[in-house]
Amino acid sequence: MTSRSSAPDAAAAASFDHENAAAAFHDLFSRLSACGATPGGGVTRLCGTPEDGAARAILADFLREAGATLRTDAVGNQFGLFRLAGAADAPVVMLGSHLDSQPRAGRFDGTYGVAAAAAIGAALMRARRAGAAFDADLCAVNWTNEEGARFRPSLLGSGVYAGHHDAETALGCRDDAGVALGEALAAIRALGSDAAPPLPACYLELHVEQGTILEEAGARIGLVTRNWGAAKIEVVFTGEQAHTGPTRMGRRRDALYAAALLITALRTVAEAWPDRVHTSVGRILVAPNSANVVPAETVLSVEVRADDDGLLSEATAWAERAIAAAAGEARVGVALRSRSRRPVRPLPAEVCDLAEACAEAESLHALRMDTVAGHDALSLLGLCPTGLIFVPSRDGIAHDEAEFTADADLEAGLRVALRAATRLCRAGGSPVRALHDAADPSRGATR
Amino acid sequence: MTSRSSAPDAAAAASFDHENAAAAFHDLFSRLSACGATPGGGVTRLCGTPEDGAARAILADFLREAGATLRTDAVGNQFGLFRLAGAADAPVVMLGSHLDSQPRAGRFDGTYGVAAAAAIGAALMRARRAGAAFDADLCAVNWTNEEGARFRPSLLGSGVYAGHHDAETALGCRDDAGVALGEALAAIRALGSDAAPPLPACYLELHVEQGTILEEAGARIGLVTRNWGAAKIEVVFTGEQAHTGPTRMGRRRDALYAAALLITALRTVAEAWPDRVHTSVGRILVAPNSANVVPAETVLSVEVRADDDGLLSEATAWAERAIAAAAGEARVGVALRSRSRRPVRPLPAEVCDLAEACAEAESLHALRMDTVAGHDALSLLGLCPTGLIFVPSRDGIAHDEAEFTADADLEAGLRVALRAATRLCRAGGSPVRALHDAADPSRGATR
Repeated sequence: MTSRSSAPDAAAAASFDHENAAAAFHDLFSRLSACGATPGGGVTRLCGTPEDGAARAILADFLREAGATLRTDAVGNQFGLFRLAGAADAPVVMLGSHLDSQPRAGRFDGTYGVAAAAAIGAALMRARRAGAAFDADLCAVNWTNEEGARFRPSLLGSGVYAGHHDAETALGCRDDAGVALGEALAAIRALGSDAAPPLPACYLELHVEQGTILEEAGARIGLVTRNWGAAKIEVVFTGEQAHTGPTRMGRRRDALYAAALLITALRTVAEAWPDRVHTSVGRILVAPNSANVVPAETVLSVEVRADDDGLLSEATAWAERAIAAAAGEARVGVALRSRSRRPVRPLPAEVCDLAEACAEAESLHALRMDTVAGHDALSLLGLCPTGLIFVPSRDGIAHDEAEFTADADLEAGLRVALRAATRLCRAGGSPVRALHDAADPSRGATR
Repeated sequence: MTSRSSAPDAAAAASFDHENAAAAFHDLFSRLSACGATPGGGVTRLCGTPEDGAARAILADFLREAGATLRTDAVGNQFGLFRLAGAADAPVVMLGSHLDSQPRAGRFDGTYGVAAAAAIGAALMRARRAGAAFDADLCAVNWTNEEGARFRPSLLGSGVYAGHHDAETALGCRDDAGVALGEALAAIRALGSDAAPPLPACYLELHVEQGTILEEAGARIGLVTRNWGAAKIEVVFTGEQAHTGPTRMGRRRDALYAAALLITALRTVAEAWPDRVHTSVGRILVAPNSANVVPAETVLSVEVRADDDGLLSEATAWAERAIAAAAGEARVGVALRSRSRRPVRPLPAEVCDLAEACAEAESLHALRMDTVAGHDALSLLGLCPTGLIFVPSRDGIAHDEAEFTADADLEAGLRVALRAATRLCRAGGSPVRALHDAADPSRGATR
């Protein structure tokens, strides 16, 4: 049982200052969007590039000015800690996402969640300065290399924080030019030596949906209850360099032909389970990649995603048979250089319930749904109560400059997250208590 | 009727100085092989790179020291003119090939023909100094960018010389990094301002076979009587960048999937006419080429080769239907950025007959055959009598570090070419006269 705040209603009112929070969000978001802006209205802001460095600096300045203490850990994750509770050992509510992007991508992916987290931290700090009482701190975070575009794997910074990778291994990941993540981050002064904060009492992430479910349902808020499983395989086909002219077809050991056989076979795998299995090859490296030379080596990034673990296993097994069959047909060698599997897992119901209650309080139509894409929230899943809140993406367009979410939708998500963060920070970071306290308006926060 | 030489037999003996020629060839060839040498025993000597520059400098030094006058034209073709005939307007016999290579390629392709030409020029110059009489000059040539690896199209330098391209267009061709051929050649000081010599009375090229026909027949010398036709098409598929996770399969417009459909279909085209049609895609550019992004654009270098013009048309039409079908199936746009067609053509019988006579004189088993690959000789075909002489490639390996031709085979080709060049330079460059003169030993060269 907590003691009652001296002015809980005033505090609540101040912390729900949506207009100020929205203004701060839009200002920060538009300044971040300028880093790596493309002529087509998107961004190219690959991890560890000067554009990433510029965005990190803008975020750091914002956080500091808003009253946060900044910490940067050994893999460049940026944490802005807003001391709201007044106690050194107060629990922490963490909100965030990532500032890195895919090449020629949209400006909302990741950046939306980071800018919203920073704006929410600033709003709660203002509320605290105006007399509101909290019993948890808020930490806004920007995770390093979520996209896996320049450095693989994806979700790298949050994965290190969650203990799935060690920092040294992560810093040793190299891009296609041979530059290590550690070198790239050092070059933009994004490497830190601060200890990362301990695991939060609750982690929340706001993100654009990147699909059409919300749009088709006419809903403003997506409450993620589950993630699709995903298997990622890096396949290496090793053929034999040869002349494309005189070399007889039957003698060729063409690594690109093997790749083509695999890519078409993978489509068949997805087509066997419509809307339940997605497959893709988004990336292929070809050597020597010269017009008159039979390719000697191809490296493919294969993905299989499914809405069920058994199905994921079945589809992945099919994909692996297709890999072997393609190698056999093209008479090339094959190796699986790396394999990872993300199982289907539910997100904790209590965080979802809290977000739903907050959406209801904002009179916003919310929909429970899956996430097919990976997000940093999934790195923390199982380690702490974790919530993932979506807003609509026009036409479902993602990883493309044409990605778009309307201001009204951005603000709807911001309002839900602001309300959820406020309640969490007044309930010691516990989503169960935050739900319970809201259900009983007589219960305030500790001072 | 030509006047008789004062010492035709001595001259002939001196010019057929195989041992000296072979020693000079091996020395030059091994120095050239060091330029861009790879650990696997091959070379990476792409056009316009410092490695190309180093090889060009070695060649120029050799030619100058051997008594040639050096000329470098506006696209970097290097000509070493050996003044053998003594008259300013003497006809010219031209021998050569190219020093550029594919990535991680063999050291024989092209370099063999250049080093042999230079060594033959040096041998004939020595013969002249020893009193031999010639009535044609000899020009050794290194053609720029034969391979089409860094800059496309292939056969670029010889194509400019033959008038198929203008120099300005050629110099404006850009590599994948956006560097123009002219800039690359300027950077290695390989651009010249000399006028190219006029069309020769006869052009001869020595080359490794890059196939297995000679090896299988147990022949040392290939006499090329005809080239296969070739159609080259640069295909651009334009899809839509999207997230590989949530984007529904049916909504994807995947440019790499289109490419895969085309690559597999092209194989079917070749399989319809075994050993008469070859197809390939050796080069593909993918954008944005990121693991989590549905590819928005692919650019493919498609080749169709056939031993008959009608067949080439039929196979190319099928390939073009496959291009359209792949675009339709993958729901992407398609454009053919460039198309070229090299028809099937015979090489002049008189040059072939002369080379055959020379092989016979050397007691070498020669075989008449097609060339499937393009060579600089084909650029000059139709403009002057043109000959192409092959020596065996072990296992037919080409465009690969494992490419190999034994010294005995290199020297066999060198002997045939030295004999043919000597006879041509004693017969005013005319292959018909060279054949006729040889048939009648009493006929010598003009002085």
